[in-house]
Amino acid sequence: MDAKATARPETGARRRPHVVDGVQRLDMRYSTALPREYYVSKDIYEKEVDKIFSRQWTFVGHVSELPKIGDYFIQEFAGESVVVVREAADKINGYLNVCRHRGHSLCAAPRGNIRKFVCPYHYWSYGLDGALKNAPGAPDGAVFNYQDWPLHRVGIEDFQGFLFAYFGTDEAPRLGEKFAAARGELERLNTPALKEIHRESYELNCNWKTLLENYLECYHCQGSHQTLCKTMDLEAMYAGTDEWQDPYFTGPVPLRPGLKTVSLNGEIVSRPLGAFASVVDLPTGYGSGFGVVPTLTRGIVHIDHAVVHALRPIDVGRVRWETRWYVRDDAVEGVDYDRENVIAVWTATNKEDIALCENAYRGVRSRRFRPGPLDNKRESAIPPALTTYLEMMAAE
Amino acid sequence: MDAKATARPETGARRRPHVVDGVQRLDMRYSTALPREYYVSKDIYEKEVDKIFSRQWTFVGHVSELPKIGDYFIQEFAGESVVVVREAADKINGYLNVCRHRGHSLCAAPRGNIRKFVCPYHYWSYGLDGALKNAPGAPDGAVFNYQDWPLHRVGIEDFQGFLFAYFGTDEAPRLGEKFAAARGELERLNTPALKEIHRESYELNCNWKTLLENYLECYHCQGSHQTLCKTMDLEAMYAGTDEWQDPYFTGPVPLRPGLKTVSLNGEIVSRPLGAFASVVDLPTGYGSGFGVVPTLTRGIVHIDHAVVHALRPIDVGRVRWETRWYVRDDAVEGVDYDRENVIAVWTATNKEDIALCENAYRGVRSRRFRPGPLDNKRESAIPPALTTYLEMMAAE
Amino acid sequence: MDAKATARPETGARRRPHVVDGVQRLDMRYSTALPREYYVSKDIYEKEVDKIFSRQWTFVGHVSELPKIGDYFIQEFAGESVVVVREAADKINGYLNVCRHRGHSLCAAPRGNIRKFVCPYHYWSYGLDGALKNAPGAPDGAVFNYQDWPLHRVGIEDFQGFLFAYFGTDEAPRLGEKFAAARGELERLNTPALKEIHRESYELNCNWKTLLENYLECYHCQGSHQTLCKTMDLEAMYAGTDEWQDPYFTGPVPLRPGLKTVSLNGEIVSRPLGAFASVVDLPTGYGSGFGVVPTLTRGIVHIDHAVVHALRPIDVGRVRWETRWYVRDDAVEGVDYDRENVIAVWTATNKEDIALCENAYRGVRSRRFRPGPLDNKRESAIPPALTTYLEMMAAE
Repeated sequence: MDAKATARPETGARRRPHVVDGVQRLDMRYSTALPREYYVSKDIYEKEVDKIFSRQWTFVGHVSELPKIGDYFIQEFAGESVVVVREAADKINGYLNVCRHRGHSLCAAPRGNIRKFVCPYHYWSYGLDGALKNAPGAPDGAVFNYQDWPLHRVGIEDFQGFLFAYFGTDEAPRLGEKFAAARGELERLNTPALKEIHRESYELNCNWKTLLENYLECYHCQGSHQTLCKTMDLEAMYAGTDEWQDPYFTGPVPLRPGLKTVSLNGEIVSRPLGAFASVVDLPTGYGSGFGVVPTLTRGIVHIDHAVVHALRPIDVGRVRWETRWYVRDDAVEGVDYDRENVIAVWTATNKEDIALCENAYRGVRSRRFRPGPLDNKRESAIPPALTTYLEMMAAE
Repeated sequence: MDAKATARPETGARRRPHVVDGVQRLDMRYSTALPREYYVSKDIYEKEVDKIFSRQWTFVGHVSELPKIGDYFIQEFAGESVVVVREAADKINGYLNVCRHRGHSLCAAPRGNIRKFVCPYHYWSYGLDGALKNAPGAPDGAVFNYQDWPLHRVGIEDFQGFLFAYFGTDEAPRLGEKFAAARGELERLNTPALKEIHRESYELNCNWKTLLENYLECYHCQGSHQTLCKTMDLEAMYAGTDEWQDPYFTGPVPLRPGLKTVSLNGEIVSRPLGAFASVVDLPTGYGSGFGVVPTLTRGIVHIDHAVVHALRPIDVGRVRWETRWYVRDDAVEGVDYDRENVIAVWTATNKEDIALCENAYRGVRSRRFRPGPLDNKRESAIPPALTTYLEMMAAE
Repeated sequence: MDAKATARPETGARRRPHVVDGVQRLDMRYSTALPREYYVSKDIYEKEVDKIFSRQWTFVGHVSELPKIGDYFIQEFAGESVVVVREAADKINGYLNVCRHRGHSLCAAPRGNIRKFVCPYHYWSYGLDGALKNAPGAPDGAVFNYQDWPLHRVGIEDFQGFLFAYFGTDEAPRLGEKFAAARGELERLNTPALKEIHRESYELNCNWKTLLENYLECYHCQGSHQTLCKTMDLEAMYAGTDEWQDPYFTGPVPLRPGLKTVSLNGEIVSRPLGAFASVVDLPTGYGSGFGVVPTLTRGIVHIDHAVVHALRPIDVGRVRWETRWYVRDDAVEGVDYDRENVIAVWTATNKEDIALCENAYRGVRSRRFRPGPLDNKRESAIPPALTTYLEMMAAE
């Protein structure tokens, strides 16, 4: 099994010009990040909500969280609260957690099971399909037509068990097509049959793009992420991120030769996923994954466990970073896996990244800051992501 | 005694067009609240300070707080601090708590007794009439004329013992005329002879109009205010609020048939007010009150006690809600009334309303929010209040 | 020795017109502070960062903090973080604490000793002269030229041992010339041979100009600063501040006749500075000092100790006030001085001023506030400082 083959879908050679100071420069030997204004302007942040956060799929959860009809969970994202709910065995819907009457939140608990949505303010009720069922005192058609007041829909797509939300009102890209290159690997790993065993969430004092840029490069890994570098193949990573030319990309974290997973020692930390459970001689370097930029979602699926990171913008200088860990759904804690062992690497790495991002953002806020030269090899994923960002900001 | 007769001054039939999306719509079957922008825009809030909060009377206290000449109290409102002070047996004045020299606050303690105002910064002093008496080192006329630098006056009107402040600099409406319909009842209840026994103050994370709208309708009462609904007559309330067509209105909280007051069981919780103290067979359903919208002040006077609610705007997404309770001034705690019993209903109701308002505002902040259809009967007081609001915002 | 002779460098008679409501008025009998807008507008604050805070020298420390090559300390100022570092026995440099690559802070500890700057993010390194030494993976000239990416320089000037920073990129005024009148006195007091024994730092809820104005006048001292007035000569102070016509000024705090220093009783609190250590009969009223307005730095050097105050703007309604105390560097605590005794007067005075400033700012924020008449004698330093402020704000 060849990790790098998986890591490098044929997206073509670097086909986007790099970005310098917000202007495309074809003839330069290096690229930079964006001008300071992009990281500190509240107006630009407000525009990003429309142009970026409402125009891409964002990871929100896993099908295993919604086994029964009526199961729901809430996810906050860029100031919006979305309820993800199972309407039927084969149907999962998303709605803004906002009653159409006066705006009161429909669900208060972060997760639960409901037969219908009942707003606790004036008891307007909605079906799991989002249709207004009853507005007390106003029968359908008497004062207004119920069909005009369904819940605000949020797009939901299930990709191999991972649930994504689309907050825009225009037509969303087809996620299955975007992630097609990872489908085969994830089917073999049977990712719908996972369960979440842990999640972490951090609020950082930095612009969300500072966090994005940090995630997109491993130039800093050798000096700052000793735990991660025990198993991750840095050289292959540099090459791998070089291929993240599309806003939707696929591929695993490349492992050092001979290792089986990202863990403290490269050995598996839970029972192998999917059909690998019965394989005696596990392959090394196996894995897959998916990613979305610039609104960063990154799923990493190893042979024995999965990790999903997701960025949740809060304000121009504030962002939330979430990480969730998954093992196969029939794995037994204490027998098949030890939770602390599964989460060890990324827990350590997240803490290291938080300090880096917050201290980088301190400098970006300096009135004399202008972005410096990016490394063509080890920071090569940043320019295309920022180019995508600028294209989205310029789009209608 | 007929509560509803009191509750419905002849203000005429619904003579204002309702409001939809900020535009007057005469031909619609329903109204809505205002577009989202009105609840989240800092610019609109700043305009409201000028156009709304400086153009209406707001409840600030009761004459019983200022028995002696020189007694004062401070009230904060919409970023301003006002000192209300008794200049003479028959004269109560209001001033901004701001020295004319460099702006230092004149009074630090929330209440007290003074012979004159002495600014602790440079010892400029002012009489209880607001006139500058002495600026150390600058005798009157030597450098400037004292008459040019009196304290900034705030209008104060005493309506049956309840004190109101007017923060604008233009001529204030005559409150006595506005509340004329309630005068007879309040005289009979002898409301100047009350004393405050408790006050509560809450800061809510919502726009002040979200709190206003919540207060103006009892559509949510049945589902959310069980304690209040034990004694309040919901159907009469729907009809009663329907009459709140004027920015200044009068009338009581209508009681369920056969009850004497708003309390946990409808029985009186303190010695009857005014002449009713000597009445053996107390009437049921008796009461009066006054109100101001859109800057919400609401006074409710029952046969045995009084409650005043007042809204204090803080910022576009932050508002203070105050409630004060009064009994007759010669009532003795533990003998004539039990404080916990007097405050039980509104303490519970306020807590319920706070959660409703904050959760409604969460949805109003959603970028896809637009206001839904209001109930023509049970939310009928909202459209005229919002129409008043828009008229005031459009006024010179 | 004549304190007043020192206090009054020949800056000429009051040659600037005073300021009223932002307009120069030559014919008025009194001046005022600026219109309210100047104290509450975020836009004006942002302009001040460019026009004021980047155009004047600000006190940051003392040479005694950097005895060895490589010694550094960090100072925050108006949103910027500067590293002040000794490059050589005769050279002290200042740099923004910002890596040229991605902006990460170079130094985390508030002070220390380094051989070179190494950014902990991607290990870019810089010499003590600010030159980029190494960018891992990008040899000089391969992708970019190192000479194009030195650290952002901040001007540093050492005036008699006191270190000042200049955050602008234009040519800074020559501080030695500006403070020339104080040079002789400070040489005699040998101010480079001091050591810091204490510092205090307060964050105040007020505009920085409210703090400036408070500092510039002693009209409030008699009523509010009893401790300070035990030794300071109020009448001479009024006259002294009258001379602060230039943005850079010199002179001591005038003492009451017969006293030697500012202390609880006018007696010295540490071993005399410089050559005075061996003087048997110490002069009274001796001292010197320097000051900068409108960005307030004020150094006061007595015969036995020194105090430096410095203002650090944070936001339109938030400012930091720092005070540091110095004694001669060979003085021994417990023998030559008692720390509590040295700091007693200004610790008390600072606390009094904080309350005054915050309560004055409450009134300035009132929408009806307009500035009142300033005292021609006791507040006479405010108008020229505000005139300087307006001139700087209007400058290119």
